[in-house]
Amino acid sequence: MHALVYHGPGEKSWEEVPKPTLQDDTDALVRVDTATICGTDLHILKGDVPAVTDGRILGHEAVGTVEEVGSAVKNVHVGDRVLVSCITACGACRYCREGSYGQCINGGGWILGHKIDGTQAEYVRVPFADTSTHPAPDGVTDEQLIMLADILPTGYEVGVLNGAVSPGDVVAVVGAGPIGLSSIMSARLFSPAHVVAIDLADSRLEAAKQFGADITVNNGSEDPLEVVAGLTDGLGADVAMEAVGVPATFDLATKLIRPGGRVANIGVHGEPVDLHLEELWIRNVTITTGLVDTYSTPTLLKLAANHQVEAERFVTHRFGLDDFMEAYDVFARPAETGALKVVLARS
Amino acid sequence: MHALVYHGPGEKSWEEVPKPTLQDDTDALVRVDTATICGTDLHILKGDVPAVTDGRILGHEAVGTVEEVGSAVKNVHVGDRVLVSCITACGACRYCREGSYGQCINGGGWILGHKIDGTQAEYVRVPFADTSTHPAPDGVTDEQLIMLADILPTGYEVGVLNGAVSPGDVVAVVGAGPIGLSSIMSARLFSPAHVVAIDLADSRLEAAKQFGADITVNNGSEDPLEVVAGLTDGLGADVAMEAVGVPATFDLATKLIRPGGRVANIGVHGEPVDLHLEELWIRNVTITTGLVDTYSTPTLLKLAANHQVEAERFVTHRFGLDDFMEAYDVFARPAETGALKVVLARS
Amino acid sequence: MHALVYHGPGEKSWEEVPKPTLQDDTDALVRVDTATICGTDLHILKGDVPAVTDGRILGHEAVGTVEEVGSAVKNVHVGDRVLVSCITACGACRYCREGSYGQCINGGGWILGHKIDGTQAEYVRVPFADTSTHPAPDGVTDEQLIMLADILPTGYEVGVLNGAVSPGDVVAVVGAGPIGLSSIMSARLFSPAHVVAIDLADSRLEAAKQFGADITVNNGSEDPLEVVAGLTDGLGADVAMEAVGVPATFDLATKLIRPGGRVANIGVHGEPVDLHLEELWIRNVTITTGLVDTYSTPTLLKLAANHQVEAERFVTHRFGLDDFMEAYDVFARPAETGALKVVLARS
Amino acid sequence: MHALVYHGPGEKSWEEVPKPTLQDDTDALVRVDTATICGTDLHILKGDVPAVTDGRILGHEAVGTVEEVGSAVKNVHVGDRVLVSCITACGACRYCREGSYGQCINGGGWILGHKIDGTQAEYVRVPFADTSTHPAPDGVTDEQLIMLADILPTGYEVGVLNGAVSPGDVVAVVGAGPIGLSSIMSARLFSPAHVVAIDLADSRLEAAKQFGADITVNNGSEDPLEVVAGLTDGLGADVAMEAVGVPATFDLATKLIRPGGRVANIGVHGEPVDLHLEELWIRNVTITTGLVDTYSTPTLLKLAANHQVEAERFVTHRFGLDDFMEAYDVFARPAETGALKVVLARS
Repeated sequence: MHALVYHGPGEKSWEEVPKPTLQDDTDALVRVDTATICGTDLHILKGDVPAVTDGRILGHEAVGTVEEVGSAVKNVHVGDRVLVSCITACGACRYCREGSYGQCINGGGWILGHKIDGTQAEYVRVPFADTSTHPAPDGVTDEQLIMLADILPTGYEVGVLNGAVSPGDVVAVVGAGPIGLSSIMSARLFSPAHVVAIDLADSRLEAAKQFGADITVNNGSEDPLEVVAGLTDGLGADVAMEAVGVPATFDLATKLIRPGGRVANIGVHGEPVDLHLEELWIRNVTITTGLVDTYSTPTLLKLAANHQVEAERFVTHRFGLDDFMEAYDVFARPAETGALKVVLARS
Repeated sequence: MHALVYHGPGEKSWEEVPKPTLQDDTDALVRVDTATICGTDLHILKGDVPAVTDGRILGHEAVGTVEEVGSAVKNVHVGDRVLVSCITACGACRYCREGSYGQCINGGGWILGHKIDGTQAEYVRVPFADTSTHPAPDGVTDEQLIMLADILPTGYEVGVLNGAVSPGDVVAVVGAGPIGLSSIMSARLFSPAHVVAIDLADSRLEAAKQFGADITVNNGSEDPLEVVAGLTDGLGADVAMEAVGVPATFDLATKLIRPGGRVANIGVHGEPVDLHLEELWIRNVTITTGLVDTYSTPTLLKLAANHQVEAERFVTHRFGLDDFMEAYDVFARPAETGALKVVLARS
Repeated sequence: MHALVYHGPGEKSWEEVPKPTLQDDTDALVRVDTATICGTDLHILKGDVPAVTDGRILGHEAVGTVEEVGSAVKNVHVGDRVLVSCITACGACRYCREGSYGQCINGGGWILGHKIDGTQAEYVRVPFADTSTHPAPDGVTDEQLIMLADILPTGYEVGVLNGAVSPGDVVAVVGAGPIGLSSIMSARLFSPAHVVAIDLADSRLEAAKQFGADITVNNGSEDPLEVVAGLTDGLGADVAMEAVGVPATFDLATKLIRPGGRVANIGVHGEPVDLHLEELWIRNVTITTGLVDTYSTPTLLKLAANHQVEAERFVTHRFGLDDFMEAYDVFARPAETGALKVVLARS
Repeated sequence: MHALVYHGPGEKSWEEVPKPTLQDDTDALVRVDTATICGTDLHILKGDVPAVTDGRILGHEAVGTVEEVGSAVKNVHVGDRVLVSCITACGACRYCREGSYGQCINGGGWILGHKIDGTQAEYVRVPFADTSTHPAPDGVTDEQLIMLADILPTGYEVGVLNGAVSPGDVVAVVGAGPIGLSSIMSARLFSPAHVVAIDLADSRLEAAKQFGADITVNNGSEDPLEVVAGLTDGLGADVAMEAVGVPATFDLATKLIRPGGRVANIGVHGEPVDLHLEELWIRNVTITTGLVDTYSTPTLLKLAANHQVEAERFVTHRFGLDDFMEAYDVFARPAETGALKVVLARS
């Protein structure tokens, strides 16, 4: 079969590789019908994730059809159309028992396209298939579904639920890339009074409006602290989400919140940040971090099937499954291409 | 009357000042029967709290007898024996309505011995008396009661409740000064499996054992990360509390916790800290900060009356109310004097 | 002035009475600009609430203008346009400190039009004015505001928040009168997948659709258990709200929920109900009851100002303040008049 | 092998039966080292549980040694000493994913000694072994462990956690049989101010004192409402637990609580109860029910290993594994024998 293979920093190719086979009796072999690329894949290609080594097939998001299952797989059957979650869960360890699948200590967590071969391929082996895939509901297209593999549960769990967004809240989202947009879209499920999107690119702020932000701030030219103060009698936001992953945006998020407010960090950080505890120690703030656990995927599936989450909005570009090299090129230059999420589908 | 008056960094005196009078109809005038000194008072004397200006009477903890009340005071009566909380609450603003009295935006919060004259005096004016004092229960001595003015609710709310200590948890407390000891004592209310006290002074670790730590670590000679790893299959503590207020101890607290764990910051910080988000972003951690709100004081009063919180254990030195200068001297040199809390009582 | 006075079961009149005066220094005297009638007032008129005695002015909902305040009132000023909450709160007792104002043990709770004279009058004395009124936000009409005096916080707190409605839930609301409609409307704030309204009157079910129910069931002709089973793989609703107040509807609510589900009772009951613990003991259910506390009124004010709660939808009939007798007549015959809420406004 | 076999109401025998074999690849075959009898077994013998049919081996509690495992079992190995939980969990269905194992819809829940053969035998087949057994920690005896198979998680989860017992609470426990005692013992983990045990038998009240009740009420001669009112300024208990399973005790529990209080039903009920909603609708109460889920077993194992839960206190009588007939006889006559829990161990 063909797959997108990583060959060290900056190097990748769409090449012939052996088709995967079952290795454990809890595995499923899934034919990939629809795949996508994540910002994390770009980080890997920069060499930022050293656990990914030469020869690894990338990708941790897929919708596909089950071709074969191990003897211990109970709930997934050959022919099933399934969502392959970005998080693999053993289902039995202390973390999995609490729904914290991303922290699985028994061989799961984020392993696809990271520690084992991933989904940017014609076929993928999915370990612990019973607890790491979801049956595709009727009436939800592959394009909608694949947004539930990573981006939507990440925005929803790590941003909205960790931030405890509630009706009437003022919510500030720092960064309006795909993850920020996912947070904005899913924050609306809890009826905040205002969702303020903050970014340096006007095009992203325009997208933020489409995804549910009622106020946008280009912090190259406008002071987001003033805007939020104006909405909150000078107190600050109830919730701020960091969806970029650099020190400056994290710092901004901690300054945006009111006493008693919450900062939900979603961004992937590569270096330490300054935390101004000399100001924050007295302000009753809560700061959360998190890799997605995907415990919310069943809920999001219901909402997508019900058209309450319009997952298809993320899709800006469509390709055939063979066109991964071109799709990466488009996805890696969003400022020029306007790409949010690119979808690759078997023809 | 006499009072302990601040005269700029390093300067204080026990001197004759005018007896306070009621200024607002919600005020009470309280005769101070028992007072104490807080670590925060030492910070003020170092000049770390610029809002405190020359001429201010210090102190935010007292047990006393009501001498006079304003016309709008409903629930506090002349002759009542009351606990004066370190936090003053208007009772009507959005923060007070949620029990977040420390963040009162209507003239309350931490004001005694800070923005208005405090309790280290023969008499003190207490604003918003109905919502800022607590009736003293029978059977609780002044010495026990005064530990509920600040130190016990601080350890309980900002450490134990923010940290969500639960039965079976492994709890690490960094810093075994009075606030750390208060956290250790009140953590025991939730039956953790282990409370690990970490400090550089063996004398404080000895005290920690008396207050409920079952494991002590002198981190001058022993690695607390190893000790906690040994208790937790290498995962880390469920909860870590920072009870010192310097960058190194905060950093240690964030390293001590397991994935999914909680860091409750209690320490008063004077400078920014490095937060290692490059490691923490993926670990599902929660970090909280807080000034005490004293919403838990009624609960602690019940527990003290019931001898479930042995508040009197903190008291190492006793003085007359006139002996503030000496009491400060003893309290400021704990390494030599062994002082935890000093109590000054009207004779 | 004139007021609507209760004269024993079945008897009321709009008559000349003395204008109220301040009795306590925390009172405000409010000129009633807009009033309404509650289903509870009809209960009183039937004699169901014996605490209401001959001579009592009815009514516990008003929007008005402050005419005079007692000397201890701090935050409410003469000339302020205010919402008079159905619940009066002392602000200092243990229940008020926890936001449970409806259970105030210090002279508050539901007292207006019950234990003291109420709001169906040209003027009303409001005790504990600082904690029992809310400033009217700009851009919210009197008609919208008055729906926040009782009906909307009741549906939101006692139905939706007690029921813990969450995104993706299937919510069943038994009874589509004004309180049921309020619950349906406010349930939508949390993005449930389905809101199923159940009633015997098609006209009410038609209204339920307008207020946000996507499925309606006339349980005279259709089996709501089957409908809900069909939506939930046979499991039952996540949340069921009882908004009628008779044994049969409560029983239905307990049968509608899935294992692990919640029943939020909102209805005012006059007799015991059979609780089928022989079936429910094993099903992990939660049943809640509650008088509204109105702790959510500030949130609802934000949502109304932001047009996220369309409070004005309840208003079906409008009258002058003098027309209380006619308004009662219309409100008491909803099957014929189609009345949901009637509004009486000073001309 | 031998097993205790049910032969219809009133009939049982210790008889020769075939040794169980693995049926599914997720099964484990466990040699029973220690077993016990539950109050539910007596209900079965009365014919109250019609799902249990002639020929069924009873029992849902065991400590044993793994003899054989199916090919899909990953975490349990031959030779392991394990606790067999009363609840079997598939680990993959929507309920198991939320830790609500008792409600498993995929073949688990309470099945041992109910829908399949149970643990009162020399060997037992345990389905879904990975998620239905717990490794026995060092330093915990079989006698201690077996109390964690059912009785302790039931009291802790269904009584204490559902009731949300908190420091300083007044907790009333109606019924001081084994389940009531388990609730009393585990309530102490949260440092309530008072635990009031209520029963008709003085011997049980005496036991209640040993297990942590500080106040006991024989409600044949004393009014528990008065006792609780005296402890709570007339308000009522914060939490009441029903641990009997008859209408009168449930009614008492609902009368014992204060406004805003919680009733946690633990008892197994055979008939409907009168719920006095005409009094309770206005009192903000919460009523919970539940079959145990055993999600707390890992926590209880830590507490038992740490001697914070003294599980061995329940054991009043010890037998050999062959002595089931005698053990049933002793357990069924607690008033005469003083039996709390009987333990049967392989010699």
